Amino acid sequence: MADPRHTHLQADVAVIGAGIIGLGIAHEARRLGRSVVLIDPHPASGATFAAAGMLAPVSELHYQEEDLLELMLESSQQWPSFVKSLHQRGRESGYRTTPTLAIGADAADRRALADLRSVQLAAGLGVEPLALRDARQREPLLSPQISCAFDIPADHQVDPRKLAACLVAGLSSHEPDHPSRVHGADEGYAVSTPARGLLWDDGRVAGVQLESGGIIHARETVVANGLGAPHLSGLPEGLNLPVRPVYGDILRLRVPEHLRPLVSSTVRGMVRGVPVYIVPRDDGTVVIGATQREDGLSTAYNAVSAGGVYQLLRDAQVLVPAVAELELLEATARARPGTPDNAPLLGRVNGSNGDIEGLVIATGFFRHGVLLTPVAAKIVGELINGCKDPRWTPFLPHRFSATRGHLWPLEAPLGGHK
Amino acid sequence: MADPRHTHLQADVAVIGAGIIGLGIAHEARRLGRSVVLIDPHPASGATFAAAGMLAPVSELHYQEEDLLELMLESSQQWPSFVKSLHQRGRESGYRTTPTLAIGADAADRRALADLRSVQLAAGLGVEPLALRDARQREPLLSPQISCAFDIPADHQVDPRKLAACLVAGLSSHEPDHPSRVHGADEGYAVSTPARGLLWDDGRVAGVQLESGGIIHARETVVANGLGAPHLSGLPEGLNLPVRPVYGDILRLRVPEHLRPLVSSTVRGMVRGVPVYIVPRDDGTVVIGATQREDGLSTAYNAVSAGGVYQLLRDAQVLVPAVAELELLEATARARPGTPDNAPLLGRVNGSNGDIEGLVIATGFFRHGVLLTPVAAKIVGELINGCKDPRWTPFLPHRFSATRGHLWPLEAPLGGHK
Repeated sequence: MADPRHTHLQADVAVIGAGIIGLGIAHEARRLGRSVVLIDPHPASGATFAAAGMLAPVSELHYQEEDLLELMLESSQQWPSFVKSLHQRGRESGYRTTPTLAIGADAADRRALADLRSVQLAAGLGVEPLALRDARQREPLLSPQISCAFDIPADHQVDPRKLAACLVAGLSSHEPDHPSRVHGADEGYAVSTPARGLLWDDGRVAGVQLESGGIIHARETVVANGLGAPHLSGLPEGLNLPVRPVYGDILRLRVPEHLRPLVSSTVRGMVRGVPVYIVPRDDGTVVIGATQREDGLSTAYNAVSAGGVYQLLRDAQVLVPAVAELELLEATARARPGTPDNAPLLGRVNGSNGDIEGLVIATGFFRHGVLLTPVAAKIVGELINGCKDPRWTPFLPHRFSATRGHLWPLEAPLGGHK
Repeated sequence: MADPRHTHLQADVAVIGAGIIGLGIAHEARRLGRSVVLIDPHPASGATFAAAGMLAPVSELHYQEEDLLELMLESSQQWPSFVKSLHQRGRESGYRTTPTLAIGADAADRRALADLRSVQLAAGLGVEPLALRDARQREPLLSPQISCAFDIPADHQVDPRKLAACLVAGLSSHEPDHPSRVHGADEGYAVSTPARGLLWDDGRVAGVQLESGGIIHARETVVANGLGAPHLSGLPEGLNLPVRPVYGDILRLRVPEHLRPLVSSTVRGMVRGVPVYIVPRDDGTVVIGATQREDGLSTAYNAVSAGGVYQLLRDAQVLVPAVAELELLEATARARPGTPDNAPLLGRVNGSNGDIEGLVIATGFFRHGVLLTPVAAKIVGELINGCKDPRWTPFLPHRFSATRGHLWPLEAPLGGHK
């Protein structure tokens, strides 16, 4: 099992992947008094790095995604206490209760937003129509050409980069002398050696094998490495984790002093049927996003689409013409881990003799990773504590496995490869 | 004059500014057998870094700029031998004889290009109309919606970053132990301490004072630091160097394999009256530029305009719709040193007793710095050799000084400040 050259690291919980979900789970595990090892060569560098950070269960509502709505609303409610748990440790997460305005550009966009509103109202969500002159009084730089405006006070925001930095700071960095060697840990550590796969022992997952040959022994292992999850070795046989890359282009811009604030609400527009948003930050910047592309320009790296950037700037200017006067600071593209039903793969894997012990899956958060971080952390924390909330059954990670719940072995070879 | 703590550097020629013009002049001075010290903390980081590198005297022709046309044509003719002088030293400049197509988007653009062509023809320049189907046969990705096409075979290109690297490599880097200390030089050296101003001795310019307190003694000092030129201390009293920043946004994009080459000619479009160009490079990238903004978003740094990027992507797509499918690699903005007549400030400064000795001005090259590099280098080289070509009188650097040729003193205090 273990190469004698490598010292092992031992922890209550090993988390593979330090995107916002893995970071939130590691934070929660520490809060529950568990020792944690978080494994990622490049923390917060994937979808988390690109994300705008809208906490928007209301405006993110899609038809026939009621289960997901419940998860989003639950997480939305948890945001204040989640943030408080960070602030108690003296850190700034960039969380703001900025309200949201939904804006339509033309008559068809107005009809689409009004139709969506009836679904939102039916779900008990607060979406109030605003007269255009009231909307423009609230946001003077809105175009006079818009067709409609709705107030959504419950949709807020966080700065995902600040939040991630805040969560990373809560873990001691663990930089072994040699990347193949890791030493004992009893608190919270981050390891920058990539994970190769799951380690098994006596029919249960017992930790993580590193690419270096090192080993992390853990009572619980959480697979939270997004699009990398299906590539881990030692996954339970037959477990299908259908995550696919959905690329998004996103812009960060600086508002010149004389135009500040460009907007004081988050502006979510529908422009000729295409969504675009403008998220204002306290530091005088705004985030404009985001495209959804499944035809990655390249799967090898994070290529920004010229057409995507053009579309974002074009549509944002339809809502707020002064966008043309901003300074373009950054154009970024990252892949989000999409799933067939747009909902995460979250929970324990059910085998023929019940749940596989020592393993929790938390991937496929698609467009909702930042919003869902508190609830994902809470659900995983409860699983680690032996509790299971039946409300989250729709998200079980084996729901797309053909041999659902019956075929994969409870015992995999120790350190076995899939 | 000299702080005894500082060792001096001595050279035949001191060049202040390592943009493409200063680099070309230093190269020419070396070619003429002179020792050279080139002074710039950040070589090739200004307009040179942004420039697309079109060598386009024909398509750059503007009404009533006949003198400038002559200078551009002269430089254009010198490009092959200039490049040869670099290649003899085993370096690759990125020079290509890519032809140029001028394309109009709508009927008004067609009329504007046809009018310009009559001026170009009157000046003896080669601009041939192409049938649209011939243009699209040559460049299959051109939009079928364009209104006209003209072939301009004489307008070529160079990669300014490669060219600059090539020229920089010809000078030994001179990194003194301490930035305030520079030592003897007898070949070609680059000094990374900023220049403070001109050093005078016995009524002539005798070299350069550095910000560090160090001194470069030189028989000839060339002021080639673009927008920084008027800020040098010790300029001749009354000499007005009216350079103003004209900002330009420019994009670099990668063409996906299946679309290569996006275009094989440089495409210069007129899109609803606004110019835009697409310059193809051998490495599968293209350069799309460039805006002209005088209302810098910020004078403190090189802010990229969101509206500028939008306009470039919009107009380039009008000419070549597949631009939407490219990967955006880089958006850059830099200031070009514009002058009231769009022509450079180039030559010796004429004082009441004739030309001020030891001083040559070479700034204000605006949009034409790359194209004009060989001719600027040649003119400055001739001045250093004691020759003066009357054809270039229209560009003399004191032509905007109110007290033209009569008031500034021939003697300034040694190391005197303006």
